[in-house]
Amino acid sequence: MTPVLADSVRLTDDGVEILDRRVFPAQRVWVRCGGVEDVAKAIEDMVTQSSGPYFAALWGMVLAAREASSLGPEEARAHLERAGARLIDTRRTNNHLRKAVHAVLSHVDGQAGDALVAAALEGARAGDERYRSRSAALGRHTAELLPDKATVLTHCWADLYLVELVRAAADKELAFICTETRPYLQGARLTAETLAEMGADTTVITDGMGAAVLSSGKVDALVTAADRVTMDGHVINKIGTLGLAVAANAFGVPFHAMVQAPDRLAPTAADVPIEYRDGTEILDRPGIRGLYPAFDITPPRFVTTVVTDRGPFDPLLLADYYREVS
Amino acid sequence: MTPVLADSVRLTDDGVEILDRRVFPAQRVWVRCGGVEDVAKAIEDMVTQSSGPYFAALWGMVLAAREASSLGPEEARAHLERAGARLIDTRRTNNHLRKAVHAVLSHVDGQAGDALVAAALEGARAGDERYRSRSAALGRHTAELLPDKATVLTHCWADLYLVELVRAAADKELAFICTETRPYLQGARLTAETLAEMGADTTVITDGMGAAVLSSGKVDALVTAADRVTMDGHVINKIGTLGLAVAANAFGVPFHAMVQAPDRLAPTAADVPIEYRDGTEILDRPGIRGLYPAFDITPPRFVTTVVTDRGPFDPLLLADYYREVS
Repeated sequence: MTPVLADSVRLTDDGVEILDRRVFPAQRVWVRCGGVEDVAKAIEDMVTQSSGPYFAALWGMVLAAREASSLGPEEARAHLERAGARLIDTRRTNNHLRKAVHAVLSHVDGQAGDALVAAALEGARAGDERYRSRSAALGRHTAELLPDKATVLTHCWADLYLVELVRAAADKELAFICTETRPYLQGARLTAETLAEMGADTTVITDGMGAAVLSSGKVDALVTAADRVTMDGHVINKIGTLGLAVAANAFGVPFHAMVQAPDRLAPTAADVPIEYRDGTEILDRPGIRGLYPAFDITPPRFVTTVVTDRGPFDPLLLADYYREVS
Repeated sequence: MTPVLADSVRLTDDGVEILDRRVFPAQRVWVRCGGVEDVAKAIEDMVTQSSGPYFAALWGMVLAAREASSLGPEEARAHLERAGARLIDTRRTNNHLRKAVHAVLSHVDGQAGDALVAAALEGARAGDERYRSRSAALGRHTAELLPDKATVLTHCWADLYLVELVRAAADKELAFICTETRPYLQGARLTAETLAEMGADTTVITDGMGAAVLSSGKVDALVTAADRVTMDGHVINKIGTLGLAVAANAFGVPFHAMVQAPDRLAPTAADVPIEYRDGTEILDRPGIRGLYPAFDITPPRFVTTVVTDRGPFDPLLLADYYREVS
């Protein structure tokens, strides 16, 4: 079955519709984006996140092509490149946006008018298909690492990677414990709701309970997505992942980080910009500051496996990912 | 200066008034308890917590003495013992309640009527004074462990211990980072508000950010209270402490746990009942469970110092606490 969140960004005749994850599941509201700037704003404002921005950027680039359909080839190309730069700039830590923009731009080559729109659409569709099939491969490889009836601790919302893991492990009767993931509560809202929707045994804990649960002996694996994995094995993911990984390591629980591929453009963690959001999103009271790093960096010594679409890798041997298939 | 929360349980002519910490600082509401049962209910319902239940139990025992003032000595004693058992039973993890009840019961010896009430009041006052002076000593000893201008990460609400630490370290210009401490947000509400009230530099993070902050090199010490410390050095404190302690250990930051004294009645962690609260306090949605262990247990290998009213101790040498002063 396809849970609601696995199909939550849609291209329509007059724009892109994005399910508002800020209020899901309490409300099911779709935000309509008439142009590429609206899409960029929606990503910045966290209307969608995790895998969502990838799809939003794909279809946003199609909107950019429509916007450019009355321009000549050169002006059209320039408009698409500006649109791509704007989309990539919305959130810097995950490289999905770069890949989505590239998927469309690489399909566009000197066209104009309807041919341009058709080429952009074809590129976006190919990107959509590729992302989904790679996520499915990732889900299968991750499922193979888990024993039957395993209890899995997860953090934030691993989106299609998690959906595909649950699908691939359907006969393993996995149970999941989700951290609520403050401040946006993606775990309590998106992960828990989708797991329950898919029929999995689902428990929610607060972010501070992870270590206690990991020390209890009742968790078989910590499994999260990664927004980015560097070539030297650093896992960049939602703030809170580091603490869980350190605790998993201390209590002998394996940590499997899911990413389609390590990032060849990021040799190490210093190459990944960490997004800091406004501290008032944490707390807004006089005389007290809020601090909001949106991601943290888990060094490879706390990572057991980086699971990719090409299978599991030791975090210190990620160069093999690009050697095995050339 | 005395912050609001340092004097938030009061005996009046017709009851005990308890500042409602569930809504502080947004609202300043006092809950009036007419009798000992009301006090027990208020503790169970988390109207007050941390040091609060100690004071509530002291003054609650005075209410019990008032209730028993028309009874003969034996019936009065039985009423006080029942009241004490009821209060101790409200929350089992912290041993403050046991000590508060003992402070009053040990002052009552065969009296009845006004003499009984006077004896109970004297016992409660002595308990109040002792608790405050021991907390002050604890604050001084903890301050001595911190360098000038130290940045201190703290969790939940260490109540009088923290207030006394800030007082004792007034010339050190400490900066504090507080975890918000879900689900009750004691850190964001009680700790942050009180630190700001006392003029300290105060930053709030979500519970999942602790490890990232500890790995940044910007934190000089993790300092929390402990609800209980066992004789073999296990620190039982608000859920979330374990994860911070493990991360502090991994990144070379010392963890100082503050407790007036290790508990001679708890040789090891198995002797301390861990309170599980209703999972619906975490999340209440169909098809999804909430799990709510209220405390976690940090083994001594993750604890640098147990700071007591008699000074700092190695967590593996706590028997010395009772040897040094006999």
